[in-house]
Amino acid sequence: MTAVKGTVYLVGAGPGDPDLLTVRALQLLQSADVVLHDDLVPDAIVALAGKHALVTSVGKRCGQPRITQQGIHELMIDAAQRGLSVVRLKSGDPMVFGRAAEELNALREARIPAEVVPGVSAVFGAAAAMQVPMTDRRSASKLIVIAGQHAADKQNRPPLWSGAIPEDATLAIYMPGRDFASMASELIQNGVAADMPVAVVSKAATPEQSIAACRLETLPTLHAGVAPLIVLVGRAMESVLRGEDAAVRQAVSRTEELLSEQ
Amino acid sequence: MTAVKGTVYLVGAGPGDPDLLTVRALQLLQSADVVLHDDLVPDAIVALAGKHALVTSVGKRCGQPRITQQGIHELMIDAAQRGLSVVRLKSGDPMVFGRAAEELNALREARIPAEVVPGVSAVFGAAAAMQVPMTDRRSASKLIVIAGQHAADKQNRPPLWSGAIPEDATLAIYMPGRDFASMASELIQNGVAADMPVAVVSKAATPEQSIAACRLETLPTLHAGVAPLIVLVGRAMESVLRGEDAAVRQAVSRTEELLSEQ
Repeated sequence: MTAVKGTVYLVGAGPGDPDLLTVRALQLLQSADVVLHDDLVPDAIVALAGKHALVTSVGKRCGQPRITQQGIHELMIDAAQRGLSVVRLKSGDPMVFGRAAEELNALREARIPAEVVPGVSAVFGAAAAMQVPMTDRRSASKLIVIAGQHAADKQNRPPLWSGAIPEDATLAIYMPGRDFASMASELIQNGVAADMPVAVVSKAATPEQSIAACRLETLPTLHAGVAPLIVLVGRAMESVLRGEDAAVRQAVSRTEELLSEQ
Repeated sequence: MTAVKGTVYLVGAGPGDPDLLTVRALQLLQSADVVLHDDLVPDAIVALAGKHALVTSVGKRCGQPRITQQGIHELMIDAAQRGLSVVRLKSGDPMVFGRAAEELNALREARIPAEVVPGVSAVFGAAAAMQVPMTDRRSASKLIVIAGQHAADKQNRPPLWSGAIPEDATLAIYMPGRDFASMASELIQNGVAADMPVAVVSKAATPEQSIAACRLETLPTLHAGVAPLIVLVGRAMESVLRGEDAAVRQAVSRTEELLSEQ
C-alpha cells in the first residue's frame, strides 16, 4: 500500500527505534512524495523516506520557531493541492500532544483528504525498554499521560496535576522541560507524596536511551539525560528505583557512565 | 531480525489492523517457533505467524478461564527451556492491562531472557480512526487510561475515578464490560458532569469498527457495538457527538446500519 496522491497522512513515528514504526507508517514513509517531520523524529527514521521524496524538518525546537504552525498547514495543503502525497511525521503518536487538532482542522477546511496512522507513544516505548509495566492487575490500574509544556501561555496553564495521584496510578509527563525543581514542588504541593518514586527516561527506545531514578523530593538534583525526556511518577516505578531489574540496571549504569564522561 | 532461540518476547499486537503491528512485532511473529496469543488478537494477525510455528490461543474470555495464568507461565518457560523462540502476543500494548508484571516476574525467576516489544494501544487506534485527537493544545492536556475490569475481586476494586475529571482531560476506559448503567452512575457519583460527551468505539482499527456517541447520563441506553470496546469520556469527544467529522459520520452511520440489520 503506497501513499495516495493528494492525500495528507498524519503519521506516528513511534518512540524512536525505526523497528517500532508500524508497518503502515513505514510503507507510507517509503512511498510519499513529501515528508514533513518534527525535530524529535530521529535521523534513522527520516532516512527511511523514499529516495525521491522532498524531506523537510518543520520542527520548532526550544520554543524558537523556525516555521509557524500556519506555515506547516500551508506546506501540507499546497503539496496536496499540487497532487503530491504527503506524510506529516510526528514522534510517538500523532493524536496526543501533536497539534493534530489544528492540522486536521486546516486540512478539513481546505478539503484535503487526510488519514491518521497511530504510533507507539513514548511512555509505552519507555515501559518496554525498562521492562517495567505501567499497570499491574494487583496494584496499578490507571495510566495518566500529561504534557509538561502544553500551553503556549505558561502563566495561565492549568496545574500539572491537582490533588493526590490515585495510589494505583502511574503518571507520565511528556516534554517536562528542564525545571525539575518547579515540577517536583508543584506535584508535592498538589498532594503527590514526596517519597513517590520517579524514573526519568532519556531518548526512550533509541540506542542512546538512559534511565535515572529517584524519589520525588530529590528530583531537583537528579542528573537526567538529554531530551527528549519522559518523567514517570508512581508506585510502579519502585522497581526502577531499587534497580532490581537487569535491563534497568544496565540502563542506569550506562547513564552513570555517560555522566562520568562529561 | 528473527526471534532468538530460548527467548520469550512479550509483543504488542496493536489495536487490530495487521498494518498497525510494528515492524519488529511482525518480524518476530513471522520467525518465532511458538506463538501464544490472547483471544482479543484478531485472526488476521495470528495468521501472520510462520508456517511452522506452534500457535496457541491462551485467552481467558468472559471470565471463563480456559487456561490459568500459571499455565501460561509454564507454557512460555517450558518452550524457552526447550530452546524454542516464543512470542507472547497481546492486543494493544503489552505493558498496560496485560498482566505483563506477572509474566515478566515468572520469566525472571526461571532465568529466561525476555524482551518487550511495545504496541499501539487501543485508545490511539480509536483516536486515529475517528480523527479525533485525545489532547488539544488549547483545551485538553491530559489522557487518563483506566481498566474497567482490572481487579479479580470486583467487590474491593477501587472506583473507576474519584473526583471530577480534570476539565482538560480525556478518560479512556478499556474493557468496560456491559454494565454501562453502573459505569455512568459511578462516574457521575464521583463528580464527572452528567452531560460529558462519551464515545464508545467497538473493534477499533478493524474493518468492523463502529462508533456510538452520547452524553454520560444517557450512556445506559446506548447501543454499543460488540467487544472489544473502549469508552472515551471528555470534552474532546464533543465533536464525535456532533458528528461533525466525515470519518465519524461514516462510522456512526455504519453502526446504525448494523443495528438496524439486527
